[in-house]
Amino acid sequence: MPQPTNSLVNSLLTDLYQLTMAYAYWSNGRQDDAAVFDLFFRKPPFDGEFTVFAGLEEVLRLLESYRFTADQIEYLKTVMSPCRPEFFEWLASLDTSCVKVYSVPEGTLVFPRIPLLRVEGPLAIAQLLETTLLTLVNYASLVATNAARFRLAAGTDKLLLEFGLRRAQGPDGGISASLYSFLGGFDATSNVLAGKLYDIPVRGTHAHSYVQTFQNLAELPRTTLTDRDGNDREFVTPVLDYRRRLGYPQTNEGELASFIAYAQAFPAGFLALVDTYDTIQSGIPNFLCVALALIDLGYDPVGIRLDSGDLAHLSNEARRIITEVGRQLDRDFSRVIIVASNEINEQILLSLNNQGHSIDAFGIGTNLVTCQAQPALGCVYKLVAIQNNPRIKLSQEIGKITIPGPKDVYRIIGKEGYALLDLLVQTGEPAPRPGEKVLCRHPFNETKRVIVTPTEVISLHQCVWDGQRTTAAKRPDLIRQYVKDQLMRTRKDHLRAINPTPYKVSVSQRLYEFLHGLWLAEAPVSEME
Amino acid sequence: MPQPTNSLVNSLLTDLYQLTMAYAYWSNGRQDDAAVFDLFFRKPPFDGEFTVFAGLEEVLRLLESYRFTADQIEYLKTVMSPCRPEFFEWLASLDTSCVKVYSVPEGTLVFPRIPLLRVEGPLAIAQLLETTLLTLVNYASLVATNAARFRLAAGTDKLLLEFGLRRAQGPDGGISASLYSFLGGFDATSNVLAGKLYDIPVRGTHAHSYVQTFQNLAELPRTTLTDRDGNDREFVTPVLDYRRRLGYPQTNEGELASFIAYAQAFPAGFLALVDTYDTIQSGIPNFLCVALALIDLGYDPVGIRLDSGDLAHLSNEARRIITEVGRQLDRDFSRVIIVASNEINEQILLSLNNQGHSIDAFGIGTNLVTCQAQPALGCVYKLVAIQNNPRIKLSQEIGKITIPGPKDVYRIIGKEGYALLDLLVQTGEPAPRPGEKVLCRHPFNETKRVIVTPTEVISLHQCVWDGQRTTAAKRPDLIRQYVKDQLMRTRKDHLRAINPTPYKVSVSQRLYEFLHGLWLAEAPVSEME
Repeated sequence: MPQPTNSLVNSLLTDLYQLTMAYAYWSNGRQDDAAVFDLFFRKPPFDGEFTVFAGLEEVLRLLESYRFTADQIEYLKTVMSPCRPEFFEWLASLDTSCVKVYSVPEGTLVFPRIPLLRVEGPLAIAQLLETTLLTLVNYASLVATNAARFRLAAGTDKLLLEFGLRRAQGPDGGISASLYSFLGGFDATSNVLAGKLYDIPVRGTHAHSYVQTFQNLAELPRTTLTDRDGNDREFVTPVLDYRRRLGYPQTNEGELASFIAYAQAFPAGFLALVDTYDTIQSGIPNFLCVALALIDLGYDPVGIRLDSGDLAHLSNEARRIITEVGRQLDRDFSRVIIVASNEINEQILLSLNNQGHSIDAFGIGTNLVTCQAQPALGCVYKLVAIQNNPRIKLSQEIGKITIPGPKDVYRIIGKEGYALLDLLVQTGEPAPRPGEKVLCRHPFNETKRVIVTPTEVISLHQCVWDGQRTTAAKRPDLIRQYVKDQLMRTRKDHLRAINPTPYKVSVSQRLYEFLHGLWLAEAPVSEME
Repeated sequence: MPQPTNSLVNSLLTDLYQLTMAYAYWSNGRQDDAAVFDLFFRKPPFDGEFTVFAGLEEVLRLLESYRFTADQIEYLKTVMSPCRPEFFEWLASLDTSCVKVYSVPEGTLVFPRIPLLRVEGPLAIAQLLETTLLTLVNYASLVATNAARFRLAAGTDKLLLEFGLRRAQGPDGGISASLYSFLGGFDATSNVLAGKLYDIPVRGTHAHSYVQTFQNLAELPRTTLTDRDGNDREFVTPVLDYRRRLGYPQTNEGELASFIAYAQAFPAGFLALVDTYDTIQSGIPNFLCVALALIDLGYDPVGIRLDSGDLAHLSNEARRIITEVGRQLDRDFSRVIIVASNEINEQILLSLNNQGHSIDAFGIGTNLVTCQAQPALGCVYKLVAIQNNPRIKLSQEIGKITIPGPKDVYRIIGKEGYALLDLLVQTGEPAPRPGEKVLCRHPFNETKRVIVTPTEVISLHQCVWDGQRTTAAKRPDLIRQYVKDQLMRTRKDHLRAINPTPYKVSVSQRLYEFLHGLWLAEAPVSEME
């Protein structure tokens, strides 16, 4: 049975009030009342229109392993000392065998008010799960969404590398960021543990400190390199020959030594960080000398990384110089890639596109993993029914009113193949059918109505837990592909980085009437004098 | 031997390039070169002037448990397939027994360019530690700093509760946030697991969903409550008597039932969330009826929580109503507390102070734990010496130039008892002494010099690791007190939320000359034509 990736994910990873409420329910004999909760958000992050739902696999692992251990119970007795001993016995017997969870598939593009999870089960246990489910879904979905936005901004042809571990919010922030950035569309991570845990590609070469540890060529213990055919060949001499020939006597010698040492260690993986001293005067010339000598031994140099300065300008300059030297010496440098890093965010990606650049790959850290533009997603977990009585949460803000009762969700695809809208219906209502007209209403605004004829209807809710797991774990690369496919099936104007067109989330006529009936019944009529 | 709190903190929680660099060093026989790295930041977070250093205990636990397991090595062989088998044997033999770490104590107020950690040891292992150390220090220090700023904004007399788990960046983001918010000055957390792991106070009562599960008084299975003296007494009837007497027939009956049930479960811990339906018309009246009946049975009601609306106005109104009813019925409500929550951040705390409010306690989540105002601290890890050769990292930006060589740090206290400045010296230089004048220089600006006569000199660097742990783990409450004490010893203008006075971090005359000598020697003189 797979455990949560992080062993800190267990029944105590919750707010104390979940346990005090459980005690209050238990004291009143209501712990087994049939409850339904919806987990959803009200506003997509980053002023965008969509969110990528993520975190489901970890939710299922939590449900599978959910127990209060003897050790945890002992601790709870100290924190909840007024509670009766029988309560702790009951708590020790709790599990999720009576819980049922419906969910949209991991990686689904989702919109405000859609229940991402619908949790049905005994009141106390369904309530106890709240905080942990939110913790597992909120950040996962936020990062996956951020990554998808970075992917949209960079374009499909760029390599995107996640480099955020050192600035992540805690170790698990880093691990989660690496997985969910990959799901959202990144190609690889620098995070080795994430690579191991999730079987996702890892990448990396060297840092400035590596370059700085070398001062001169005399520090190199070996001057040779084994060529593609397995013969030991002189390597430093040809590098220096190229350096003379190209007229680069001034390049930093320590940097050159560090590049040679790196190429000796990874002849087929030579990617050089070129900005430690001076990108144009030293880094790129040193890269070229080593790259040319590598080609002579049968290896393809991989490329360079820029980590400071004007990335658009420097990448264009770098490309011009590399191409020019290739032309001069009749070498094919067309597969040499330029990687850029240094505090890149979505705005910078968009701005680089406007300026024109020659970057093939981006290494992105801080702003991706901490979601600088909005560091939290506001998923909430609301009671929508108790003992088959629908519950509505009223609020002065219309956007905060909950849609009562258990609901199913359908995505309606139009004749162009794009998603037209999402339709919420009461569970048990017949699903809309392709080719048949259906009236879709705005949940709160009486006058907003639209009739659609679906070409295709996708049922978004699946039962993923029914006392036990009912779906197999999905491979991260398949979820990633699913995200990619949906981005293709979504109108560009919904995906736009700035001022996207709102995507409609509608309710059926029956749900509309039900919602408004309950709203009218519950809303107090105030009196003015 | 205590392990890292999060089992994901291990030798693989690092960037791949640390391992590829290690291979390049090892291939060149340089893995044991003597290296010194500084871990420091260049700019305090939140446009402030100070940072609270945190994460040291977890750093020490990492160092203690640092090993590559057979399983990890097998994985690395797949990722680093070009590397020679002997490299992996060497990796499997690695540990931190040759590493020495100097650190400022956990909880110290720190400033730009001060080495928070100085790591000395064989090049490869000292380099391999980089990412993990940064991950453990960056977020820990960021949250501790954020918490300290919230504390400064709220004032010393307010109760501060951390409620952020559900919005934290991953499960460990939540666990770390709870600990480091406590260190920075919060009083308690809602996070039960953090309470257990770190022995810090946990708090919590109930949520809106709890209130909503009740519809009427008929749902209450019991109408009695055991009083302070152990006698079973009628409870619902007196509550309803007060309701009639005070003229509150309109309050929401489900809410009243939920309050009664909660008081029955926790008669000595009755704190009611009053804004589910209508704070003034329903929540506070219902609270008062239950509170009065509790007093009659010998219990002190704890208070109310406001979670929406205009917190300044509502808290003042609530206090007025509660006091008025107390006066009317001759009951002492002076210890009833008002807790406020709902998207509170530092600016809102400052603004509430300006408006005037009656809040005694704040529950703060999202903006505290995700550090909304700046979600990452930019600590870096830079090579400052190799084989006893000092290394300087030059940059076009003066702020990015590193101060070469191993250094010690002294905090100079002036005659008012406040910290005057921090002084960096070369290791081995004599420490400044109380009563003796010392010249302190700006590291980069020749003309900025000051002579100080310390009243007290605090040596900030301690050896915390010398192949093994050299200091015992500190209790979180003692670190918290240390933070508090330092905030008292720091001039208010350095702590100001907006536009604080810069705090001087100086270098000794000897370090100044050394730095500038090396800078001149390494900086290229460019030629113009």
